[in-house]
This record gives sequence, structure tokens and C-alpha cells, in this order.
Amino acid sequence: MIQRNPGFANLKAGYLFPEIARRRRAFAADHPDVRLISLGIGDTTEPLTPHIAARLAEYAAGLGTLGGYSGYGDEQGLIALRERIAEVGYRSMVAPDEVFVSDGAKCDIGRLQLLFGRDVEVAVQDPSYPVYVDGSVIVGAAGPYDDGSLGGHAGYAGIRYLPCTPENDYFPDLEDLPENGLVYFCSPNNPTGAVATHAQLAQLVESARRKGSVIVYDAAYAEYIRDPDLPRSIFEVDGARECAIEVNSFSKPVGFTGVRLGWTVVPKELRFDDGASVNADWNRLCTTVFNGASNIAQHGGLAALEPQGLNEMRVLTDFYLGNAQLIRQTLEGLGITCVGGDNAPYVWAHFPGRASWDVFAEILDRCHVVTTPGSGFGPAGEGFVRFSAFGHREDVVEACSRIEGLTVGP
Amino acid sequence: MIQRNPGFANLKAGYLFPEIARRRRAFAADHPDVRLISLGIGDTTEPLTPHIAARLAEYAAGLGTLGGYSGYGDEQGLIALRERIAEVGYRSMVAPDEVFVSDGAKCDIGRLQLLFGRDVEVAVQDPSYPVYVDGSVIVGAAGPYDDGSLGGHAGYAGIRYLPCTPENDYFPDLEDLPENGLVYFCSPNNPTGAVATHAQLAQLVESARRKGSVIVYDAAYAEYIRDPDLPRSIFEVDGARECAIEVNSFSKPVGFTGVRLGWTVVPKELRFDDGASVNADWNRLCTTVFNGASNIAQHGGLAALEPQGLNEMRVLTDFYLGNAQLIRQTLEGLGITCVGGDNAPYVWAHFPGRASWDVFAEILDRCHVVTTPGSGFGPAGEGFVRFSAFGHREDVVEACSRIEGLTVGP
Repeated sequence: MIQRNPGFANLKAGYLFPEIARRRRAFAADHPDVRLISLGIGDTTEPLTPHIAARLAEYAAGLGTLGGYSGYGDEQGLIALRERIAEVGYRSMVAPDEVFVSDGAKCDIGRLQLLFGRDVEVAVQDPSYPVYVDGSVIVGAAGPYDDGSLGGHAGYAGIRYLPCTPENDYFPDLEDLPENGLVYFCSPNNPTGAVATHAQLAQLVESARRKGSVIVYDAAYAEYIRDPDLPRSIFEVDGARECAIEVNSFSKPVGFTGVRLGWTVVPKELRFDDGASVNADWNRLCTTVFNGASNIAQHGGLAALEPQGLNEMRVLTDFYLGNAQLIRQTLEGLGITCVGGDNAPYVWAHFPGRASWDVFAEILDRCHVVTTPGSGFGPAGEGFVRFSAFGHREDVVEACSRIEGLTVGP
Repeated sequence: MIQRNPGFANLKAGYLFPEIARRRRAFAADHPDVRLISLGIGDTTEPLTPHIAARLAEYAAGLGTLGGYSGYGDEQGLIALRERIAEVGYRSMVAPDEVFVSDGAKCDIGRLQLLFGRDVEVAVQDPSYPVYVDGSVIVGAAGPYDDGSLGGHAGYAGIRYLPCTPENDYFPDLEDLPENGLVYFCSPNNPTGAVATHAQLAQLVESARRKGSVIVYDAAYAEYIRDPDLPRSIFEVDGARECAIEVNSFSKPVGFTGVRLGWTVVPKELRFDDGASVNADWNRLCTTVFNGASNIAQHGGLAALEPQGLNEMRVLTDFYLGNAQLIRQTLEGLGITCVGGDNAPYVWAHFPGRASWDVFAEILDRCHVVTTPGSGFGPAGEGFVRFSAFGHREDVVEACSRIEGLTVGP
């Protein structure tokens, strides 16, 4: 019989969000009369804004006409969209042929790992978005999971976990970066909501260059940054073009979580140790095992980057940031220490000395609110819970009211 | 500096269709007054049919309303769509939880190779769709390319090429199947247009089971089958559930090449040598490095599988088959031996003793018609050219008229 990719045997059970969905369904089955409110998965809840929804519908209807029909597009995306992303999203700091449109950041992260193969050493912020690590395990760049029960550090063999905790102000110790490795870095951070400063990113870039490592910079939440001094792209930092790839998404800025649209920037300066161009290999990968994002979604993306779309994007992200403020104020009112929520749609709440899944279960059982246990994002997330600010306002208000009754303690 | 995935260094230059596009652009630049007609890439040209286009537009507009908005869906696809594919597409021979909706067959083929890792032996029909081989090279299941100039067989090291030629009626010698390997099999075939009979598929399944190999059955053109005795799915054959995965697509049946929607069926009986379920690993892969097809596209897929959509699908595929008949009659009128075009949208034309790229160039230069050189699909495609039946009728008629002036000969 055929062999299994050994990476799958190494994956521990259940990707985080399906596991939360399972527990949520189990709770709902046991409590059919309870109305659960989810502040768990970061799933957008508000309707698409008018300009963007109208353009999607208009383009889709046009596909039924001879003049409006379009078959395969370039796998890398519509040229107009690549140009607009380069111009509007990056103030022309990157070129259109460095922008590759995709069906979303998660999918691109999966594909990115194919660029570097299984011999590369991978480092992630701890806590971090689970896909970085799970994807590395699948391609064989990481080995089996050690749950820490034998006294070792919990985590996958071969993954370098860079703790981001209150002690280091959520910025990792750069001495821990691998040599000639791959460093996943997310800012505004999922799950902590912390945002790296320009000075911190400059240090990160300097360290990566010195060590010969490549940064995969996940900027999926950049549109939530309100502090004008905080960088929205790694390419605002000198030297980043020599060491960084940036992944981004329309999911959280305009609610395209279900519509599916993202992009990745691969600068032409980026090289492998054999001198080959990373941009060229990424182009080859995208044209070979990908076939472009949906043309309907891409026209929605074009609308989002027009002046009216950008205004709508601002209103929508302001709305979710308003939710975040309510959540953070509620938690802080209970004496719970939090970060995030000011320049990110996540609030990261600290429950020192407690297990994340226990706090998750307690908030589910007592408040009927779904959160995300911090330990699901990595060993250093233990003792934390993530509150997502994606929700209807009345639900967030109701969730906050329920949480106000929570007694916190170890 | 960071290492390159060695698979990329092994890939030979240029995926086939970008190379054709490049030559086409070069010709157009040199001949600005010439109107080229493409019978090259299999790209749909006719507008989406009314019922399907209306549903896409309606769903997209609804995303701008509170009641119609939807964020993340299940990564595996809408349950209603999985059910409908199982019921309508497979007459319930497969279960809904064996159907995984995707953004297209090409993307799924790329992901499928991750299930089996790099130690599996890969076999392909020769000629075949280039993605099977290129994807295998990227994951390391195949090695460097040998162009045959030193006297060896042209092809990638580690790939088992199964010639499908006039001599064997386009069905491979099953003695050549690998042990415990992966066998890509496409019917109706791209590029040859040949369709395997039920008896042939039964032999294929029997051989694969005996050898412990898994068949990846590409049925992307199944909707073009008109002969009621020909199988439209590998699952019509007893025993296929123990050895086959089927990949399929909405691209060619309803013109979703740009909209992006496909699916893969992974039966629950399928096991790896360690006893693990292939269905479970595929589910893990899809939930980890994929995030579902666009919800707009999925609602278009639902419309396509309603009675009115199915009628429209039939009319559209009949139209392209009409084109195929015109092309085949024209070529046969010139004394050129052809297969395909009757149950497939491709006509595979034989130019014995000539190099495919030379014939491609001659038809481009003299008829101003773009085709696809057979050698781009594998060593056994040398001496053939593929004509795609995707085109507006007046373009196909004009192309046929130009081709009638072609003098054929070695």
C-alpha cells in the first residue's frame, strides 16, 4: 500500500478552530436553550460595504454577457489589482510584479513553505497563528510533537519557538533567530494584538539579514493600525526587501473571509543560497499549482482599493475596533490584564496561573461566550485567552455584560 | 542564506501554457495587424449561462445585507454543495463527507501531492496535463529532467511515463504501474481526448489494487462524454473506492475557469500503509492550508446542479463539442489522423515524423492559429498537436477555414 507523508503522523490532533467548533457544538447540544455568543474565531460578521458588494454583483452578472465574460486570468492576479495594491497598499514601495494575488493568506502560507523545502529551520512567535507550524510539519520541516509531559519544552521538534510574553513586551529575543532559516512574524499580532514598532522591525530585519534568514511577515491585520507611528508593512523598514516576504489579506479589512482574496509580496532582491530568485520560484509555484483567485473576488478587491472602498474599509475596521474597546474595558474592569484591541481586532487577556482551556471552558459554561484558548496558539499562550472583536455590536455588548459577572481567580 | 527547495532547481523552464503565451505575444508584437485565433489553452470563451450568472450576482449582492452575509465557511465546502455533488454528480455512489469542494482541480492536484510525500513513485499517462509531473517535482517525488539528448528516455527522473499512443489505443500498459505508487489518470483525457471504457477502468482499478497503488483520477472533462456506455467517474467501477481519488471541476462544464470551483472525492475506504485514513489526512490538509472556495463561486456551483443549471450545462458543453466536430472534420479532411472531440473538447492531431513545436510554429505562422504542441504534455506527445474546442463559433469556423489551406507533410 501507498506510504503516508510522515508529516501527517506528526501532526497532533485537531487544528485549533475545528476543535473549538466541536466543543461549541457539544455545548450547544447539551444546552439547546442557551444562545451562545462567539468571540472565538476571528470571523467577520458585518455585511460587505455597499460599494464593494455592488461591484461584486455587477461583475458576476456581467460574466453572463459576451462582453463581461472572462475565463482564466493570470495566475498571479489581475494586473490592475497588482498595480493598485502596489500603489495604494505600499505607496509604490513594491512593484506590481512583486505582488501575487491569492485566495487568501492561509492558502499562501501553505504554499510558501513549499519554496524552502523540509530542511529549513522554522521559527515562530510563540504564541502564533497555528498554520505556520502545522504547515511546516506537513512539509517535513518540523518533526513530532512533544507535549512537555516528560519535562521538555512543549512543541514540535525542529520548530524554534520565540516566546512573546508580557516579560518581553511581546517582542521576541532576536538572539534566538535561526541561521538561514524561516521566521514567521505577525504584526498586528494574531493572537496577542500587539504591534511591533518601527524600531523593533528594524532590529528584526537587521537580525534576519545578519543570520541569512527570511522573514514571512503576516500583515493581515495592518488595516487595524490607528497609531500613525506604527508600521503597516515590513517594507517600511530599510533592508526588508533583502530578507522579507509579506503576506496580506482582504479578509479582515473588508470582510472577505468567505469571498477569499489575499496577496503576497515577494521582492526581487530576495535570493536563495544558490543565487536563484525567490520571486521567480514563487511565480513558478503560483503558475504551476495555483490558478488565480476568483475573478469575482478580484474585482471586489479592485473596488475596495478605490477611494469609496477605502472609506468603507475605514468605517468597517473602526466598527470592529469599537467592539475591541468594549471588550478590553470590560476585562480590565474585572482586573484582568490585557493587550491588543487598540490597533488590532484581538484582545489578549491574561489569567495567570490558570490553564487556557479551563478559562475557555469556564467562560463558555458560565457566560455562554466562546473565546479561543491561548495555549492553542503555542506553549507561551498558556494562561491567556483571546477575545475576538468580530461580532455584531449588540452581541458584543451582551457578551461584555455576561462577562462582567465573571469572577476571576486561579 | 536560506536554502532553496531543491525541487525548483529540477523543474525545467517554463510551465507549458506561459511558454505558449510568451510565443504568442512575441508573434503578435512582430505581426501587429494579424488577428490570432487561439485553439491553444483550454480556456472557456462563452458567457456564463443565465441561471448560474443570476445566482452568482444575487448571492454577491446579498453579501451586502445582514441576512445574506457570510464569513468563513467550512473549508471542505458548503454542506449543501457537497450533498448535491454526491447526489447529482455521483448518484450517491459517494457520500457528502467524501466530497471536498475546492478552488479548482489544478490547486487540488498541487495539494494532493502533499498527502504522499516525496518517497512515493509517481506514474503519469504520457502525454498528460503538466501539473501532475511539475507538482511531483516540486515536492521532491521526482528528480532532474533528462532531455534525452544523451540517449536516455526524455523525462524527469523518478517519474514513470506510461505511453498512450495510437499503438495502444491511448490506454497504457498496466504492467508498467508502480508498486505502492501514485498513478495520475485523466479521462476524458487531456490532451488526447481519448476516453477510457468501463472495461479499461476495471483493469486499471484491478491493477492498482494488486500493486497497492493509488489512482488520482482526473475527471474534469466528464461532462463532455456523450456515449452513454462510457464511464463518467472511476467510482462506477467496483473496487475503485479502495484505490482511487477523483478530482473534478466546474471550469469546463459551466465556464468557471475564472470563477474557480472544483472538488475532490476521497473515499473512506482508502488507507495508507500504516492504516491511516487518506480521507482524514485530506480533511486535515484542507482545513490547515486551505480555507474553502469563494462562497460566491460555491453558490454558483449550487445553481449549476439544479435542474435549470444542468440543462444549461448540457447546452454549453454541446456547443463546445460542436466546435470540436468542426475542427476534427477539417483536420481529417486534410488527411490528418485525429482522436478526441467526440466525448471531449480536445482534438489530438497526429503529424508523424514532425516535431510538435515545429508544427505549432507552422500553424501559428501560416494560419495565425494558436495550438498546443503535444510534446509539452510529455515525451510521447511528440509528433502531435492539441486543438482546443473552446472558442466562439465564428472564430472556430474562421480557424478551420485558415487551416484548410495548410499543406501537411514531414
